[in-house]
Amino acid sequence: MEKRKRYEALLNNINQYNSGQIGITRIAYSNEEQACTHAFMRLCKNEGLDIRLDSCGNLIARREGKSNDLPPVVLGSHLDTVYQGGKYDGVVGVTAALEVIKRLNEKNITTDHPIEIISFACEESARFGVATVGSKAMAGLIDKEKYRRLKDRDGITMEKAFSHCALHFDQIDTASRAGEKFKLFLELHIEQGPVLINESKKIGVVTGIAAPARFIVKINGKASHSGTTPMNMRNDALLGASEIALELEKAANEEKDFGTVATVGVLNLPLGAMNVVPGKVELKVDIRSSSTKSRQRVIDHLFHTIAMIEKNRQLAVESEEISMEKPVLLSTEIVHDLKTICEEHKLAYKLMQSGAGHDAMNMDLFGPVGLIFIPSVNGLSHHPDEHTDLEDILIGIDVLESIVLQHANI
Amino acid sequence: MEKRKRYEALLNNINQYNSGQIGITRIAYSNEEQACTHAFMRLCKNEGLDIRLDSCGNLIARREGKSNDLPPVVLGSHLDTVYQGGKYDGVVGVTAALEVIKRLNEKNITTDHPIEIISFACEESARFGVATVGSKAMAGLIDKEKYRRLKDRDGITMEKAFSHCALHFDQIDTASRAGEKFKLFLELHIEQGPVLINESKKIGVVTGIAAPARFIVKINGKASHSGTTPMNMRNDALLGASEIALELEKAANEEKDFGTVATVGVLNLPLGAMNVVPGKVELKVDIRSSSTKSRQRVIDHLFHTIAMIEKNRQLAVESEEISMEKPVLLSTEIVHDLKTICEEHKLAYKLMQSGAGHDAMNMDLFGPVGLIFIPSVNGLSHHPDEHTDLEDILIGIDVLESIVLQHANI
Repeated sequence: MEKRKRYEALLNNINQYNSGQIGITRIAYSNEEQACTHAFMRLCKNEGLDIRLDSCGNLIARREGKSNDLPPVVLGSHLDTVYQGGKYDGVVGVTAALEVIKRLNEKNITTDHPIEIISFACEESARFGVATVGSKAMAGLIDKEKYRRLKDRDGITMEKAFSHCALHFDQIDTASRAGEKFKLFLELHIEQGPVLINESKKIGVVTGIAAPARFIVKINGKASHSGTTPMNMRNDALLGASEIALELEKAANEEKDFGTVATVGVLNLPLGAMNVVPGKVELKVDIRSSSTKSRQRVIDHLFHTIAMIEKNRQLAVESEEISMEKPVLLSTEIVHDLKTICEEHKLAYKLMQSGAGHDAMNMDLFGPVGLIFIPSVNGLSHHPDEHTDLEDILIGIDVLESIVLQHANI
Repeated sequence: MEKRKRYEALLNNINQYNSGQIGITRIAYSNEEQACTHAFMRLCKNEGLDIRLDSCGNLIARREGKSNDLPPVVLGSHLDTVYQGGKYDGVVGVTAALEVIKRLNEKNITTDHPIEIISFACEESARFGVATVGSKAMAGLIDKEKYRRLKDRDGITMEKAFSHCALHFDQIDTASRAGEKFKLFLELHIEQGPVLINESKKIGVVTGIAAPARFIVKINGKASHSGTTPMNMRNDALLGASEIALELEKAANEEKDFGTVATVGVLNLPLGAMNVVPGKVELKVDIRSSSTKSRQRVIDHLFHTIAMIEKNRQLAVESEEISMEKPVLLSTEIVHDLKTICEEHKLAYKLMQSGAGHDAMNMDLFGPVGLIFIPSVNGLSHHPDEHTDLEDILIGIDVLESIVLQHANI
């Protein structure tokens, strides 16, 4: 009960920093996010941690071990949010890491390996359209000249936003820790989807982080009069689009063992009218999987379907690949360890993939990576109603503590 | 060759009246349309016809017969166009009627029955959103108070537009000829579709005028993250919409013997984003047939499909019927006569329905109605490239002349 109250106070403390009226708005490199990071830094200092702030705005708080030459056990997530987001996305991972440190301090445990908490900067794409900026910078994966000029919705560049925070964009390269080794990297995060809550599981042991393949598909038929054009003389672009949407669903359903998903999230039918057979339709397609092969089978079916509608409906289709990111497979060793911990704690858990990207995916450069999910009520995230029960967060923290203790060596 | 040149000059004369740069724009009750009607009136007077102008802007030009108590043979269509329309839609029917009169005059033929040409006002819905206004007024079918307040895109009401033409909207009722009888009504019109041209037919003998049943279908699912929502936990409104579009196509294909067509012409997916499973989609559906029963079977299938997607995809669907017009079956006697004429003239013809509405559909109050189609190149209409070969128009005029002579009695 003591731990519950202590953690609840920490969570509420962080969520004071909010620029909006609805939900939580704590945008990367804003005053609210910087004040929040500063407060979190103080809380870390209170626990005796050494603080480092890097040139990208990442905060690194370190608890020394018995042997400081040993690679650190690193726990991290982020404190920034989307516009009108929730109280848990990212925050849970950072605060849980500090709660683990508090427990170790309380028990006077000194581990062999050092332990680090990282609060990554700018994980959300809400401000600049690019995600996991802080963890990319740490992994040396930033396209500096591209990022420098990215603008937010008020026209402020990333470079300017850095300067507002007393950061020098030109020095962003020095945030890179490429070459260092971690004992392991661990992130606790809300699922942001409905799987755990629907299946009454407490812990999601993530086996891979899906990456999107994205396409814009332009379908060109022939606009004609809906009354005077017989069905067999039509080149209806919308019917072609409908076939693509349903075939993508079918193909993704066949890959369900791989957790593969496919979505037509945008369908534009310009110049549509009640009495006109649609001549042009544009689709935006998103296909994700943690298995590159499974994702490729769905992509192949997309192009097979496009070829079929071109032939059967006499449509001309142009498609453009706009992204093809690489899925990240997480450490099977850590997956095994997390399963064992869940079984020991008698927790209902599920092996699953992450459909969304996380800072963890940029950390595999440094060593084995583990990602732990806890349930999201109604599967909601990036929304003011985002919610995870405090009890479920505490269960997540218990699991995180166990795996830290196991790998940091007492 | 004489007749060809004479008719070509008449057609060009009419198409001088044009307010636009692209195609022909001769909007109902505009200066161009009124000037055109005035010129056509003079051309009718030159042929010795008696002129009547009614309170809706219809022009009635009458050639007396031997027995003026006999009901008239009436030929009519319209001179107004859509914005950036073509040279043939409507114009062909009005000018062909005058060419028939010229031929009778040339041959000094006096018929038993009087013959009338009607140039109907405001056939196109382009200006006020309502079609066949002149022929509706003549049939006494105007909803006066609703029409009075209809506005064009510049905010001008129909009442104001009437006043601009020195017409008193209050007197529109007096345009009604309800109670009169016609020997028959005939309209020659371009097909506005691709059937005749694709099948190399010269004449379409229209057996019925399809009327649209129209629905707005709102599909409510649940917006969710495209990465974190497994396929089997989605309520994707776009996939429901896709099923509706494809099932409508299937149902209409099964009714092809009735010429029934079904179209989703509008699909709105507001707030669509690449990484969001669509939560809301709105469709506009248009189903047409000259057979009420066939159309109803397609409507039934629409609602069956809606029930299926509600159940299988857990979607909530609201549908609103926004029109349910009555198809018009044309006179089988005239269809028979037109077939016979085509066979005598050795013309390739086709019995077909009209997918678009025409003034003819409001004339069945007065007696038997016949509608004759001639080919539209590429099936195009309401378009600057609308085209019908002069030779094909002359063939249509020959058929029109034959059936007039047959029914007006020499």
